[in-house]
Amino acid sequence: MTTGAQALLAALQVEGVEVCFANPGTTELDVVRAFDAVPGMRCVLGLQENVCTGAADGYGRMRGAPAATLLHLGPGFANGIANLHNARRAHTPIVNLIGDHMSWHLPFDAPLTSDIESLARPVSGWVHRVASAGDAAWAGREAVRASLARGGQGATVIFPADFQVGEAGGSDEAAGADTGEEPAPAPDLAACAARLKSARKVLFLLGGGGPASGLGARGQRAAARLCAALGASAYAETFPSRAERGGGLPDFDRLPYFPEPARAVLDEADVVVLAGALPPVTYFGYEGHPSRMVEPGRLLALGAPGEPVADYLEALAGMLDGPGWQDAAPAPLPVQQGRLTPAAISATVARLLPEDAIVSVEGGTCGYPFYAASAASARHTALTNTGGAIGQGLPVALGAAIASPGRRVVALLSDGSTQYTVQTLWSLAHENLPVVVLIAANHQYGILRKELARGEQPGPQAEALTSLDRPRIDWTRLADGYGVPSSRVETAEELAEAFAAACARSGPTLIEMQL
Amino acid sequence: MTTGAQALLAALQVEGVEVCFANPGTTELDVVRAFDAVPGMRCVLGLQENVCTGAADGYGRMRGAPAATLLHLGPGFANGIANLHNARRAHTPIVNLIGDHMSWHLPFDAPLTSDIESLARPVSGWVHRVASAGDAAWAGREAVRASLARGGQGATVIFPADFQVGEAGGSDEAAGADTGEEPAPAPDLAACAARLKSARKVLFLLGGGGPASGLGARGQRAAARLCAALGASAYAETFPSRAERGGGLPDFDRLPYFPEPARAVLDEADVVVLAGALPPVTYFGYEGHPSRMVEPGRLLALGAPGEPVADYLEALAGMLDGPGWQDAAPAPLPVQQGRLTPAAISATVARLLPEDAIVSVEGGTCGYPFYAASAASARHTALTNTGGAIGQGLPVALGAAIASPGRRVVALLSDGSTQYTVQTLWSLAHENLPVVVLIAANHQYGILRKELARGEQPGPQAEALTSLDRPRIDWTRLADGYGVPSSRVETAEELAEAFAAACARSGPTLIEMQL
Repeated sequence: MTTGAQALLAALQVEGVEVCFANPGTTELDVVRAFDAVPGMRCVLGLQENVCTGAADGYGRMRGAPAATLLHLGPGFANGIANLHNARRAHTPIVNLIGDHMSWHLPFDAPLTSDIESLARPVSGWVHRVASAGDAAWAGREAVRASLARGGQGATVIFPADFQVGEAGGSDEAAGADTGEEPAPAPDLAACAARLKSARKVLFLLGGGGPASGLGARGQRAAARLCAALGASAYAETFPSRAERGGGLPDFDRLPYFPEPARAVLDEADVVVLAGALPPVTYFGYEGHPSRMVEPGRLLALGAPGEPVADYLEALAGMLDGPGWQDAAPAPLPVQQGRLTPAAISATVARLLPEDAIVSVEGGTCGYPFYAASAASARHTALTNTGGAIGQGLPVALGAAIASPGRRVVALLSDGSTQYTVQTLWSLAHENLPVVVLIAANHQYGILRKELARGEQPGPQAEALTSLDRPRIDWTRLADGYGVPSSRVETAEELAEAFAAACARSGPTLIEMQL
Repeated sequence: MTTGAQALLAALQVEGVEVCFANPGTTELDVVRAFDAVPGMRCVLGLQENVCTGAADGYGRMRGAPAATLLHLGPGFANGIANLHNARRAHTPIVNLIGDHMSWHLPFDAPLTSDIESLARPVSGWVHRVASAGDAAWAGREAVRASLARGGQGATVIFPADFQVGEAGGSDEAAGADTGEEPAPAPDLAACAARLKSARKVLFLLGGGGPASGLGARGQRAAARLCAALGASAYAETFPSRAERGGGLPDFDRLPYFPEPARAVLDEADVVVLAGALPPVTYFGYEGHPSRMVEPGRLLALGAPGEPVADYLEALAGMLDGPGWQDAAPAPLPVQQGRLTPAAISATVARLLPEDAIVSVEGGTCGYPFYAASAASARHTALTNTGGAIGQGLPVALGAAIASPGRRVVALLSDGSTQYTVQTLWSLAHENLPVVVLIAANHQYGILRKELARGEQPGPQAEALTSLDRPRIDWTRLADGYGVPSSRVETAEELAEAFAAACARSGPTLIEMQL
């Protein structure tokens, strides 16, 4: 016989799901058993659920197709919500499988019972509770399709334990409904071209994503041609899910984070083209700054996230006679010396970055300077924290490495944010993945110190609540504890040597960078 | 002027809140500033939110009064849901403060925006969104009262950033509503006594909680008198939030976890007295076992969790002429030798447990054998995992230590579950708390192996997803990394020596126990 769990896994595989990031419990054991009965799914164990969901985010960004997660009831799922929030902002397709109690056990409010739907909805575009073992195959298939809808989203299947083990049969009881969707219509490119031609100053805001996005290589080259044709400028959105970078691609910086410098850039333009980016709003609300940084009349929509924006940009470049663009080898970056600073770290990593690397960037310390410096790097892919829930950079690196065999992955992180999902180190060692983990250790929540500095002088409690200094966390010991080789560096020369050596290793390495 | 944040903190303090377990972000910075302006609240920083919420659970269990948590928007709160789920099952009063965007910023769906209410409701008996700075004082006061209602629960305040910094004024705009509640009426004790007298075989199921609960010292002594008078037996509920134990108190075991042995105990009785315990249901649903382990006709309710059940038990013992009870010094536990086993660990820790210790027990490996052995320990307080969301034991120990200055805290944990909140070690070092962390390291998810063994032979994927063996986590390195002194032991003799030494230290210690 075929169990519900086997039928669901088979459906996922038919729809192209190849990997499951899992932290199962008792109510998922029949799915676990089904991994053996329906072979072909690669299972990656995470020791905490945000490891699994963040990895699924990194995987989905690189593949444009969903990984599955397998999580334990409401509390286990809750542990993965933060990184599902980030994935939602990245428009990443993910299929979440959550086991639940036997359907007949639910009314008795056993200790692990909770309102899973209420927890799932804020991070799921689609939520389905499996209603029978015969419903499982349909649920698996539709979950994959739903995850790919609306430019990519979370699709969550709640799977009661009795329907995992029950007889699935051959039929699809709930078949019929279909979450597939028509592609969005292309924008009126002639009208767009006309508006751009008549504009005084155009700014392109390029949204991240896969090869057809505004921040794929094609999209950026077309944007460069348009900039040349129009005397326009272009920026990446502040936190792109994925951007191609370096190797002579055009050097477009990210829109600044704080409202003052962002507005300085945006206010110059009378037309802001949203090339797969959302209308820019301030990250937080700041007194005296409108949330909406560009009034609607100045916006020109050229496709939402997930739409083939590169095609539209290329077509516009042709219509507006944009000159050709040739990637030119970037000027070599200067060798850094002496004490580590965010600038020195960024320049060193950018200079030594291997060709075709994937860089997961998180944290205020090195995020911006690295993105600026890495225009002169070898060609690589950058992934950033899209939703602001910190503890995302390391799991995303894990998932990107699983998604992209043969590519070197670099996680450029900060000490405060990486603590949230430090357990990821074990999965990197367990899977022996080629990930170089760089921890900028300034022993504080630096971004909060910056935000506090915008107001009056902080007092001792405010200092204490933003300090990680007593005791200082020893990242090399943590890495050792999880089986990841590690070192600590204090100068740019030491970093260069350690980073180059780490990039030559087949497995993971952690380098603590003392600031 | 008084800001909304200051007004709320002042209200919390008036209502008796002394401690805040915090992991703030940008939208909580005006609460952070208010900690300096309204001094008196002890702030304890956690590096991940389940550290904060689990600590608040441990604190609330020991104090019977709420601690506050301070968490960052929806994603930060989500990171703390799992331990709030456990706290909900423990009936622990907790006041959660969640910062949110400026109220006028919310409609713009900035990256960190999410449906906080949907996330909060499953673990909060009371949720309130502050509607103005003038509403903040009322919200603080009512949150404390709500947290103490219904035997103890989560009360969650969502606090938009503009109302934190706005002028609170002197008035209470929303005053009037009151979450206070009448105490539940006492049961009809004469009718209870009559039913007990006419019963063939009575079983008392004692619920955990504070001094007036069924598992306080008074409640257990009264239950022992009743057992003697009636020829009855008594058990602790399977996962008590708090139980007094040892030092000659009656030796009542916990109701077993799996349905077969639990039913063997329960089926013998024609009357099962719920002394602050809920009607027993199986932990998970198991085919062939009804969820409800005792049909309603055999149940006799003697007070819900949070009610003064010890008073009722004492009154019944008097009415039924129960003989007196004298705590008798327990027989000394035998010294263990040789290789570590769960039994040897349990007997060793039980033998050497300091007087008046608090023991936070989590994990299937040592939880049951320790609870059995510890009847012969010095008098102590045991705290268990009430809700099944693992990663609770270490944060609960942190909170219990903050709540109970001068008492030694022992956290008897397993390697799988402790990984979820390993960051707690830093807070133990930061606060220099007298906590001895004992990790039973069997390098697997043992409880899942046990559950898998109830079915057919697990395959290689099932083996891999329940194994923590490649690489083995080195807990001593992790402890070193967080500034906690540590050692590894492999024999009962080594454990005895290391445990005694750890109990003599003023700060935290971790001991990895190799199984």
